[in-house]
Amino acid sequence: MEKIVSLAKRRGFIYSGSEIYGGLANSYDYGPLGAELFNNIRNLWWKMFVQRRGDVVGIRGPIIMNPKVWEASGHIKNFTDSLVECKVCHARLRADKPNDIKEHKKSHSGKKVEWTDPKNFNLLFKTFIGPTEDKTAVAYLRGETAQTMFTDFKLVLDTMRRKLPFGIAQIGRSFRNEITTGNFIFRMKEFTIAELEYFVEPGTDDRAFEEWLKYQQDFFTSDLGIKKENIKIVDLPKSDLAHYSKRTADTYYNFPFGWDEMAGIANRTDYDLKNHIELSGANLKYKDPETGKEFIPYVIEPTFGMDRLMLATLVDSYEEVSGGRTTTTESAKEKEVVLHLAPRIAPIKAAVLPLVKKEPLKKLAEEIYRDIKEEWMAQYDEVGSIGRRYRRQDEIGTPFCITVDFDSLEKNDVTVRDRDTMKQDRVKIAELIDYLEEKLA
Amino acid sequence: MEKIVSLAKRRGFIYSGSEIYGGLANSYDYGPLGAELFNNIRNLWWKMFVQRRGDVVGIRGPIIMNPKVWEASGHIKNFTDSLVECKVCHARLRADKPNDIKEHKKSHSGKKVEWTDPKNFNLLFKTFIGPTEDKTAVAYLRGETAQTMFTDFKLVLDTMRRKLPFGIAQIGRSFRNEITTGNFIFRMKEFTIAELEYFVEPGTDDRAFEEWLKYQQDFFTSDLGIKKENIKIVDLPKSDLAHYSKRTADTYYNFPFGWDEMAGIANRTDYDLKNHIELSGANLKYKDPETGKEFIPYVIEPTFGMDRLMLATLVDSYEEVSGGRTTTTESAKEKEVVLHLAPRIAPIKAAVLPLVKKEPLKKLAEEIYRDIKEEWMAQYDEVGSIGRRYRRQDEIGTPFCITVDFDSLEKNDVTVRDRDTMKQDRVKIAELIDYLEEKLA
Repeated sequence: MEKIVSLAKRRGFIYSGSEIYGGLANSYDYGPLGAELFNNIRNLWWKMFVQRRGDVVGIRGPIIMNPKVWEASGHIKNFTDSLVECKVCHARLRADKPNDIKEHKKSHSGKKVEWTDPKNFNLLFKTFIGPTEDKTAVAYLRGETAQTMFTDFKLVLDTMRRKLPFGIAQIGRSFRNEITTGNFIFRMKEFTIAELEYFVEPGTDDRAFEEWLKYQQDFFTSDLGIKKENIKIVDLPKSDLAHYSKRTADTYYNFPFGWDEMAGIANRTDYDLKNHIELSGANLKYKDPETGKEFIPYVIEPTFGMDRLMLATLVDSYEEVSGGRTTTTESAKEKEVVLHLAPRIAPIKAAVLPLVKKEPLKKLAEEIYRDIKEEWMAQYDEVGSIGRRYRRQDEIGTPFCITVDFDSLEKNDVTVRDRDTMKQDRVKIAELIDYLEEKLA
Repeated sequence: MEKIVSLAKRRGFIYSGSEIYGGLANSYDYGPLGAELFNNIRNLWWKMFVQRRGDVVGIRGPIIMNPKVWEASGHIKNFTDSLVECKVCHARLRADKPNDIKEHKKSHSGKKVEWTDPKNFNLLFKTFIGPTEDKTAVAYLRGETAQTMFTDFKLVLDTMRRKLPFGIAQIGRSFRNEITTGNFIFRMKEFTIAELEYFVEPGTDDRAFEEWLKYQQDFFTSDLGIKKENIKIVDLPKSDLAHYSKRTADTYYNFPFGWDEMAGIANRTDYDLKNHIELSGANLKYKDPETGKEFIPYVIEPTFGMDRLMLATLVDSYEEVSGGRTTTTESAKEKEVVLHLAPRIAPIKAAVLPLVKKEPLKKLAEEIYRDIKEEWMAQYDEVGSIGRRYRRQDEIGTPFCITVDFDSLEKNDVTVRDRDTMKQDRVKIAELIDYLEEKLA
């Protein structure tokens, strides 16, 4: 894990948030390469879960909603951690984490530490709308994106002329004011989730659950390129289910700190729609246009921690190679790092490298670079030996390095090196865009 | 404007936020078509301002940063509205809006209304990190995205091996707890801005300002397809400049409620970096690798209200046609609406329509639909007359309608209708994807 954290910072994937001010607990900034990787995963998700599905549409709702939404959803009542307070220093810790409490005692070496009784603490971040900070002005930052899909269910159904089964999806920032955070970007107070609420007729919910579970797993392995052996599905025992869930299956990834959750599917039944009907008085029932039957739909919810998916792709693709992977002698002495990211999510798709930093090679290389960056994120690099430049690109997962050499000037072709096989193709400059397009699809 | 609002709701572009709970002041949900339009504008911005520029990189920072960031930026001190309080009902209104105050008096018809002295009210949304709600726990939702680019300036510079001039860009949600909001999605408390901080050597800042102003205007007209006559540049007089600005040029759009700001460029000088250096003690100076000269860069900041750009594209592309634009007699009696959105930002790129709702036409049409949605957002529609279906697509700005008729079965071709010219091309099914790809570029 330390290696991932160090690479992520050194190469501009992930920095500590507000670093110049000593940071902010578990806050991270995605640097240029992290932002690209994140955007690529986000856009791929949208493509696979919205665009390519005829039965799903996407929406984009606000972070601050009417507080009644969180009353209906049960978040105000149930979205809590049980905390105890240290009577010495007033630090608050989770009552269900005895190890944290033991650790804390050590910080008061010698002194006797006593604790208050456990008290529930709500995990929604609180804010105030308008200039007065009283009860009527209280609002919350959303703890999940799902609720917009429930409150807008009927609006979407009617304006988009939909029939069941169909789904509504959203990707966005969510907030949980947790005490225990950690493990790099795995657990942050501010994070991005992608959620899909698939509305079905009760009785067809179990089958829909199975179908989405399969679709989700295909996304991890075929689209994101995560290795099968590093993923497992954990079906939650009935006793561990959330109060609204009929069945929940989490997908765990083999992180360096152990197997942990990166996605899940829940059968939320009619819990949310029912509560919103009760609290708002709105009619969120569905009337089957053919049978005339009216009912509250059941909801199957595939959900994805986008930051966790990003962390999983970094961990999964990380390889350290000893003994000179690239051809230069200097590199033979050092360990080399390769990120085998799926080309479709790699932050930089191609790097253009003139063999030497001289004209007319530079000019030709710059022209090729300009053409490529019209289509994809690309880099131009003329500094250092070719071997060193290959290594810099391997380390950030760039799938293709394009070398412009003296032959290029006469034969109008370049060398394209594949990151994973290190095989080199000679490709005509006029055919380069098509060549890359096929490889990046 | 009412027509835009009504169309936006009826066709799934924009709904009132939390509608089933009576809404939330100036909060809106982007429905399926609004979400697509928004994403297309966002992705196009990223392509033009990050991907295609060799001199700009993107980042993605959190909404909640260390509060010291907002101290350094001047937001805690200067980001305020001056408010007066009604002594009758304790409502607070902006002291610089005498018309609002007059309106308010009317609501207390008869009663004498007195006001408190004006008091500054900070526009940053406040929250608390952790379980205690005291001063040490206070944090803010960002009022702009720019500050991450300043705090991370040196990190990006070093990890991305950059030289001046270069820029850092970010798109994201920002929050302003304003009293006066309104005009649909033009002024919301929660909105999305795209900002680019371009770091230059002092003395080269005026030229960089001009270059970005031109690049920005090209984006509005060439890329987003907004009409030139509906845009104007407003150079702010010295007396109206923000305290940090040497020059500011806003871009106004001709909205239905009048000309108003949708984007701007400011010369922020070295104001932000200087303040962050002072407060954090970090060295955010730049050392020229060739001359060895050390200095605090000046910053040119192009900034874009993404929701405002979206509203501008809707307004700009809206056309009402009387007298039967489509060919059916039924439609000749009604007004027809066409959204002439630039194809590259249109929510739905193509609609596939079987001439009649019968096999084998349906099957062929469904196959074509499946192929198209692999590449782009598409719709399949078999309900109603062809004329009615054309109109439904015109109304949401779909650039191409593909009709599958009986000839299609024998000749393996379809009719492609262009939204703007209403010209119909006969295109071989095997060539359809290439045909659309060229038109959508």
